[in-house]
Amino acid sequence: MKEIIAIIRMNKVNATKKALADIGICGLHAMKVMGRGKMKVDFSILTDLGVSEEIGGLVADGLSAGARLIPKRMLTILVQDQEVDKVVETLIKVNKEGHKGDGKIFVSPVLEAVRVRTGEKGTAAI
Amino acid sequence: MKEIIAIIRMNKVNATKKALADIGICGLHAMKVMGRGKMKVDFSILTDLGVSEEIGGLVADGLSAGARLIPKRMLTILVQDQEVDKVVETLIKVNKEGHKGDGKIFVSPVLEAVRVRTGEKGTAAI
Amino acid sequence: MKEIIAIIRMNKVNATKKALADIGICGLHAMKVMGRGKMKVDFSILTDLGVSEEIGGLVADGLSAGARLIPKRMLTILVQDQEVDKVVETLIKVNKEGHKGDGKIFVSPVLEAVRVRTGEKGTAAI
Repeated sequence: MKEIIAIIRMNKVNATKKALADIGICGLHAMKVMGRGKMKVDFSILTDLGVSEEIGGLVADGLSAGARLIPKRMLTILVQDQEVDKVVETLIKVNKEGHKGDGKIFVSPVLEAVRVRTGEKGTAAI
Repeated sequence: MKEIIAIIRMNKVNATKKALADIGICGLHAMKVMGRGKMKVDFSILTDLGVSEEIGGLVADGLSAGARLIPKRMLTILVQDQEVDKVVETLIKVNKEGHKGDGKIFVSPVLEAVRVRTGEKGTAAI
Repeated sequence: MKEIIAIIRMNKVNATKKALADIGICGLHAMKVMGRGKMKVDFSILTDLGVSEEIGGLVADGLSAGARLIPKRMLTILVQDQEVDKVVETLIKVNKEGHKGDGKIFVSPVLEAVRVRTGEKGTAAI
């Protein structure tokens, strides 16, 4: 069993839920997080975009000061080992826009799962 | 060391905290999540319950569209290996009502734990 | 790859973000949690502090009843294996005040990481 954690844009939760349901993955949990990725500021890009170096510098200062966290949704999805690849592919397909902030996915090991209602354990509980 | 994650009903947090304290487990963290389990819609049950097929169909559509997430509480509890079984049993005892939505428990490995105040590591930090 | 989870005081998030950025760790996610640590009540300390035994007893009752959860921030930080030690040291340095409630850090294994925008996997995605 594996836990797949996906950090995605807030406006992508519904499309992601639907896409996962379409491949038979119904169980998931979503929570609100504030986050940031690497966000290396590339000044040449800022300049190309018409952002003056001074403003670019201010933005970079803001980032390096750690001031900006962006609201995101964190999804946790418990899956069987053989489902990991299709879930990751589906998450990428729905959430990839080609821009910074598209999100991140990581996969962690799960040793045991239990369904509270029945006491079922292991893959039967997923 | 293990991390036990329990997704439970919102109205079960206090009883769960108390039951865990009673077995000597005091450290836990709770957060709000929106979630859903498998929720396979069984039309025959809906019909048996007097739900017309049309309404049943609408409900099923809603589910398959991934529209419904239910507010839940996610508890994370850091425990020593030998405490896992009693914590899981206690979580089941308190949260099992026999209905869908009773929740789910999963257990993940933890490689290291540190108490910030003292710098203590390993089981001493739990 | 490892996931470092830190439960810290709410007023320490900005200083922690800044300290992590200073050592080159920019990616993190923060969420609000309600939590408590071990909080074993030591009556002799309460008495030494001028708290009467009766009030100390009430406090202890409150704790054992599991009534008090404190608002905290939970940070999750995805790092490469060789970055774990410096991140943990930095988290301790910023958050250690020497009082109960300074927080806890734990480290969990991560099997795979994926950057959604590019599909990059492994350490390239961190």
